[in-house]
Amino acid sequence: MNIQSILAAERRLEGHTRITPMLNAPLLDAELGRRIFLKAECLQKTGSFKYRGARSAISALEGAALKRGVLAFSSGNHAQGIALAAKELGTTAVIVMPSDAPATKINNTSAYGAEAVLYDRATDDRDAIGEALAHDRGLTLIKPFDNPDVIAGQGTVGLEIAAQAETLGITEATVLVCCGGGGLTSGISLALADRAPAFMVRTVEPDGFDDVARSLAAGEILSNSQTTGSICDAILTPAPGAFTFPIMKAHCGTGLSVSDSEAQRAMAIAFAHFKVVLEPGGAVALAAALFKSDGAGDVIAIASGGNVDPNVFEAALTKASK
Amino acid sequence: MNIQSILAAERRLEGHTRITPMLNAPLLDAELGRRIFLKAECLQKTGSFKYRGARSAISALEGAALKRGVLAFSSGNHAQGIALAAKELGTTAVIVMPSDAPATKINNTSAYGAEAVLYDRATDDRDAIGEALAHDRGLTLIKPFDNPDVIAGQGTVGLEIAAQAETLGITEATVLVCCGGGGLTSGISLALADRAPAFMVRTVEPDGFDDVARSLAAGEILSNSQTTGSICDAILTPAPGAFTFPIMKAHCGTGLSVSDSEAQRAMAIAFAHFKVVLEPGGAVALAAALFKSDGAGDVIAIASGGNVDPNVFEAALTKASK
Repeated sequence: MNIQSILAAERRLEGHTRITPMLNAPLLDAELGRRIFLKAECLQKTGSFKYRGARSAISALEGAALKRGVLAFSSGNHAQGIALAAKELGTTAVIVMPSDAPATKINNTSAYGAEAVLYDRATDDRDAIGEALAHDRGLTLIKPFDNPDVIAGQGTVGLEIAAQAETLGITEATVLVCCGGGGLTSGISLALADRAPAFMVRTVEPDGFDDVARSLAAGEILSNSQTTGSICDAILTPAPGAFTFPIMKAHCGTGLSVSDSEAQRAMAIAFAHFKVVLEPGGAVALAAALFKSDGAGDVIAIASGGNVDPNVFEAALTKASK
Repeated sequence: MNIQSILAAERRLEGHTRITPMLNAPLLDAELGRRIFLKAECLQKTGSFKYRGARSAISALEGAALKRGVLAFSSGNHAQGIALAAKELGTTAVIVMPSDAPATKINNTSAYGAEAVLYDRATDDRDAIGEALAHDRGLTLIKPFDNPDVIAGQGTVGLEIAAQAETLGITEATVLVCCGGGGLTSGISLALADRAPAFMVRTVEPDGFDDVARSLAAGEILSNSQTTGSICDAILTPAPGAFTFPIMKAHCGTGLSVSDSEAQRAMAIAFAHFKVVLEPGGAVALAAALFKSDGAGDVIAIASGGNVDPNVFEAALTKASK
């Protein structure tokens, strides 16, 4: 993979993805003594950056495969991105998700026109169900992060950051990225290595789920010991991917992590100062900018998603006001 | 006033105001059977469109007057717009506000670098205080809406809408505007009469505070009998202005109004589908698009502001989920 893959994705996505704004807040900057810019991917179609990678990967399929359709395992943002992109591109998306996924997530996927196939976490083999569907119907599996066309799509966030930073007169910056499996981080870091090499990309993960930070420190892929136990559900992944890790290793600085409570406070700051809605996993980069600052200079924090239930959002606002 | 005034304001504002995104939400459109585009001025600097008019008016002052500074009566969005614009333009802003205004509003105004002068609603004469300040210090009063340079600044929202609509392939639309004294509405309607004459601009006010709708119907300026009693505090004004009314009369369709409860439900829809934070008064246009639809075709709703206290926002989410 190289910058050409991202530029090719950019051409496929043009006119379909939104160029999301890079917001800042003068009062907050004055308090902190440094400028924070929030790249608001929560304002992307489907409420997260995942639509970019999904549309990039589906639009890269050749005619017959595109017509047969795609398959994804997800109950979250990737599923919504895949569902909408498939619908727009006139093909079928089958989303395999656990039957105990929140009703709103199942409903949203169906509302976008995708076919939801539910399985029982306790008794069914998810992969076997997926393989059977792929085999019988000729569906192409689109993995959520470890897929070069997905990474290339997420990399278009990096192209936008480079262009917007130039307009804003930002010449050096730390770029903080909410990190699960590393699709967004690897795409952005690859784009910025070409377009803004003075920018330093750093991953941000939830405390206790910092597989990427530990992998980067060790120089090899390490896993989390658990995959549940944080409110940042969108970015709880077991380990970085075979495609994403080498890119991050080549281009990223030391990884950071934040607590659930810091993510909630960042959600409240985003509400008060930026007027955008962030989900917990989408707020960890802003949280690191606010609470893990270990330097001066401009910070660009990616707000990766805003798909959050009202009660989770209210809890964050209430907690932060105490 | 004419389109030239707005184009002149656009030149003064270029590089200072944000071009705010015009968002849409495919699932919501599918539910409603028509497209709704949300012009997200809550993402403007200071969290509302008011910064445009404030900066337009202050930047139109000639050198000596600019140096002496400006004066505004406001405890809300206009005050924040004036405070930030004055600071950026290197001059002084004095904001006269009641001593019982919420502490956060007083603090925000000061944080933006303005001088807050507090008065007692019961015993002091606000206008006399303002006149004395203006006289003694040579300050220029910037009214919140009935000022041609303010109207011209707000009109730049209309220029952006025309350009964004063209990109999005919108050829005809109803444009719904949250309306207080009519500064935003008159500016937008003047801009669109020139740039997109097939667009129909309509005002949206809170039920019981529909002075503009009644004035438009009567063909003359009428007042509200009360100025408190709705949660939409940002747009509770006694009557349309001497500058704003003739422009609205020439260019706007029939006015609409919505209940507080409809505004709250619109805040919850904006949270769920658009991932932006709206204050009650900034949500009435979206509320009308959702609940007062009396036609087909595309709707562009202005989301005029997002400065809302967490408890008011939480109440809206909670109420809407019932």
